[in-house]
Amino acid sequence: MSQIPAAPDTFHVYDTTLRDGAQQEGLQLSVNDKLKIARYLDELGVGYIEGGWPGANPNDTAFFAAAAAGQLRLKNATLTAFGATRKVGGKAAEDPQVQALLDAATDVVCIVAKSHDQHVYRALHTTLEENLAMVADTVSHLVANGRRVFVDCEHFFDGYRANPEYALEVVRTAAEAGAEVVVLCDTNGGMLPSWMGDIVSAAAQVGVDLGIHCHNDTGCAVANTLAAVEAGVVHVQGTMNGHGERTGNANLITVVANLQLKYGWPLLPPDSLAESTRISHAISAVTNVPMNNRQPYVGASAFAHKAGLHASAIKVDANLYQHIDPTLVGNDMRMLVSDMAGRANIQIKGSELGYDLSNRELAAKITDRVKAREMDGYSYESADASFELLLREELGLAEEFFEVLSWRVLTGHEVKPEGDSEAVVKVRAKGVTYSLAGDGHGPLNALDVALRTALNQAYPHVDDFELTDYKVRILDQGHGTDAIVRTLIDMSDGERTWTTVGVGTNVIEASWEALHDGYRWGLTHPARVEDDPED
Amino acid sequence: MSQIPAAPDTFHVYDTTLRDGAQQEGLQLSVNDKLKIARYLDELGVGYIEGGWPGANPNDTAFFAAAAAGQLRLKNATLTAFGATRKVGGKAAEDPQVQALLDAATDVVCIVAKSHDQHVYRALHTTLEENLAMVADTVSHLVANGRRVFVDCEHFFDGYRANPEYALEVVRTAAEAGAEVVVLCDTNGGMLPSWMGDIVSAAAQVGVDLGIHCHNDTGCAVANTLAAVEAGVVHVQGTMNGHGERTGNANLITVVANLQLKYGWPLLPPDSLAESTRISHAISAVTNVPMNNRQPYVGASAFAHKAGLHASAIKVDANLYQHIDPTLVGNDMRMLVSDMAGRANIQIKGSELGYDLSNRELAAKITDRVKAREMDGYSYESADASFELLLREELGLAEEFFEVLSWRVLTGHEVKPEGDSEAVVKVRAKGVTYSLAGDGHGPLNALDVALRTALNQAYPHVDDFELTDYKVRILDQGHGTDAIVRTLIDMSDGERTWTTVGVGTNVIEASWEALHDGYRWGLTHPARVEDDPED
Repeated sequence: MSQIPAAPDTFHVYDTTLRDGAQQEGLQLSVNDKLKIARYLDELGVGYIEGGWPGANPNDTAFFAAAAAGQLRLKNATLTAFGATRKVGGKAAEDPQVQALLDAATDVVCIVAKSHDQHVYRALHTTLEENLAMVADTVSHLVANGRRVFVDCEHFFDGYRANPEYALEVVRTAAEAGAEVVVLCDTNGGMLPSWMGDIVSAAAQVGVDLGIHCHNDTGCAVANTLAAVEAGVVHVQGTMNGHGERTGNANLITVVANLQLKYGWPLLPPDSLAESTRISHAISAVTNVPMNNRQPYVGASAFAHKAGLHASAIKVDANLYQHIDPTLVGNDMRMLVSDMAGRANIQIKGSELGYDLSNRELAAKITDRVKAREMDGYSYESADASFELLLREELGLAEEFFEVLSWRVLTGHEVKPEGDSEAVVKVRAKGVTYSLAGDGHGPLNALDVALRTALNQAYPHVDDFELTDYKVRILDQGHGTDAIVRTLIDMSDGERTWTTVGVGTNVIEASWEALHDGYRWGLTHPARVEDDPED
Repeated sequence: MSQIPAAPDTFHVYDTTLRDGAQQEGLQLSVNDKLKIARYLDELGVGYIEGGWPGANPNDTAFFAAAAAGQLRLKNATLTAFGATRKVGGKAAEDPQVQALLDAATDVVCIVAKSHDQHVYRALHTTLEENLAMVADTVSHLVANGRRVFVDCEHFFDGYRANPEYALEVVRTAAEAGAEVVVLCDTNGGMLPSWMGDIVSAAAQVGVDLGIHCHNDTGCAVANTLAAVEAGVVHVQGTMNGHGERTGNANLITVVANLQLKYGWPLLPPDSLAESTRISHAISAVTNVPMNNRQPYVGASAFAHKAGLHASAIKVDANLYQHIDPTLVGNDMRMLVSDMAGRANIQIKGSELGYDLSNRELAAKITDRVKAREMDGYSYESADASFELLLREELGLAEEFFEVLSWRVLTGHEVKPEGDSEAVVKVRAKGVTYSLAGDGHGPLNALDVALRTALNQAYPHVDDFELTDYKVRILDQGHGTDAIVRTLIDMSDGERTWTTVGVGTNVIEASWEALHDGYRWGLTHPARVEDDPED
């Protein structure tokens, strides 16, 4: 195939999910969410993880502190702190925001610099010369403090069109001050692929390594990134699942899969690309932004076939009907989410939880059960606690802490101070039947209060259990009252947090199932000795 | 800006949402859904609407029959029937599938032809010569019967790589048999933009008008389409919101917006592009596939700004922070869905429903109320009945058919034959208080039964009301139990169907609100004279 460039000697896969991706409307990441996502990114094998903007955002400062304190041990990726050039008229050495970048204690710092003359005038309210001085001063100061420095040239492409000399002068200034990579940013996202080549080539005349940072406002973020790569950039920025402000950033999973599978460039560690489907879905569970089933390479439908095809023809040669072998990205032609749960995955997951599943027949039996449940809409990737309960059942280790004799919840028009819902739960625990009621705001809250009160007599430490998060997702977008709902519940006892899943056409029933599993798991793993269920 | 080609004299915007878009996993379109979508497509101003495959699919046959019977009066678009070349070894004139294409009574027919030698051998099980004969025979027969014929060359790009001479021979055969346009299809979706030019240019040597049909498997469907346009194709195929099999088809909205706004080609009728945001969202309501907030140009977040920007800088010159003026596509920088409800829209919608809203103050007051409600999560684009009830309230025309004194619903573990939920509804109608209970499968069903039974004494014709569809959507993907839920309910009395909306953090409360509105609207517009509420 024509026009495939050779792989450069060094090439950066740079992820900015935790910084630019987090700019997405409605997306909010806690420090813990960010740590989880960073671990997934490292597992995928990206070269650089932009962790956030220390100093500008307390959450991000806390994230870098947690990473520095050893909560993030990266085996593939280099953690990067993001910030801006120093203030107008100041000195980098005295700028608190620049100091916060150093305090973040990362090997690499990426700073954003203005490269569009109108933005210098109208947003910074300073001169073109002072902006260049800000770039030079900030880069030099960071380099003098032992940092590798990347410079994001904000609004570079629009800036180049408005004033090409000045845009290139910013690139040159950054390079001369010691920047290792200068990244050309299509900040407003209005570029088209055929417009990239000339501008990137012009910047390449400066002689510094270039990077590319695209947004998807024309639906071309991936293609614009590839066009820049073909014009010589050696550093690509993007985000997992294309998260980001407005229409999002270039989807780094798609960019890397294209470069690795279409160009043949071995960018990720061996076998890592085959983890991309799992990791993409796992990150979706953390962000609680539903996966786009149609996402290239890793979406649940990406290799699903529906009509116009004869199964026999697919059997003859599946490659006639797919652009790549889906297993290369850990996906599957049949493409039910359940098919992600291979026996090997189940065995690995079991051993992570401390269970020996080396027996092939046992592992196959559990895998079949997980597949069947996932076909019904359950998702165990994000609900380890429900998965462990299922495992224990199959292994004959399930403990019967309590039996639910009945549950009911009443919701009505009347909003009293204690809520709009009332629940009654009847359980049998340690030989005694308890029937207790609870009030709450919404049916789940009421059920939680009632169940906790009922179990409290037999297991006082359920008082420590707290329902900390509740997510509902409509799984099929089909018509009618029979749409399937998946609920995920996070519970905590102050020491640990665990996640359970429930599924059903009745949202309350699905919520109850997840709640029930949440209490079962909490009792299975008592935090305090005096409440040991064996007593 | 460099590399912008001049607009061709004729250029086809060809939509295949109703045929190839409907191949999307989980997407099911009724005849009525297809008619609605076709009307929206015509309003947007596409040149061609591919309606489906008559003969192959009873639903599609019924759609063409409905269109031919006058249920679809198109002002901009030409309806197109899709089919395949005749059977191996047969004659087009005797092929029932080809006859069904003629029976569909459209001016244009688009047929798919194999152009990849391996697909001829291994899927058709015939010779390369017979495949050419099938193309020539089918095209000639359709042309002889007065049809304009477009030919989709399936797997063209992969076929060209495997056997360029044969792929081009299929194009030539179709052209010589009288095809008006030969469409090059990247059926497996594996192409990249920089690979398009050479292959399209080779096909252009045949001398027939070429089209392009891309899928998004590499995340480049839009860019591949643009690359083909730059190489000379004059016909672009795609789907609304990028619907389609696997990763979907090229998003026709994005393609057209790029061509119209970036290239400056006036493809749609004047002012139509500014309807694209509204139409895109309206089609989402019909398909019940949620809008991608990050969809280029028309997504709710496409022009939303979050961080790193100073509001003052945006005020100075918004164009520094957006790649186009969002009003060109009917979108908005602030980008709350509520902002789609401009006063003019409200006035138009009001007059469609028979209300005079020419008074500017009144229209502004109603617009403000709609905006405030849409900010809370209501959507009136898809819930005309709730919108009309709101209008009537503002106009002092609201009729009080019944007052709800209380409602309650109980859901529990016990599944009896009559369901798992019980509701009690107390209403006051025509001076009498009715308190009635209902059983159902799920809380909404139980509430519907109870409310219907309670109202039945005062308004016997509520027995004709039927709850025909129920959609639930989680609006924000944020954490916690406070996620906002929107429910849409379709009701029918056998003559008309109407849609209402409810919103809340408690899904049952939101469902109740929509149900309540549904009964109010049904009573406001009685279908039968004897049940006139004035009596």
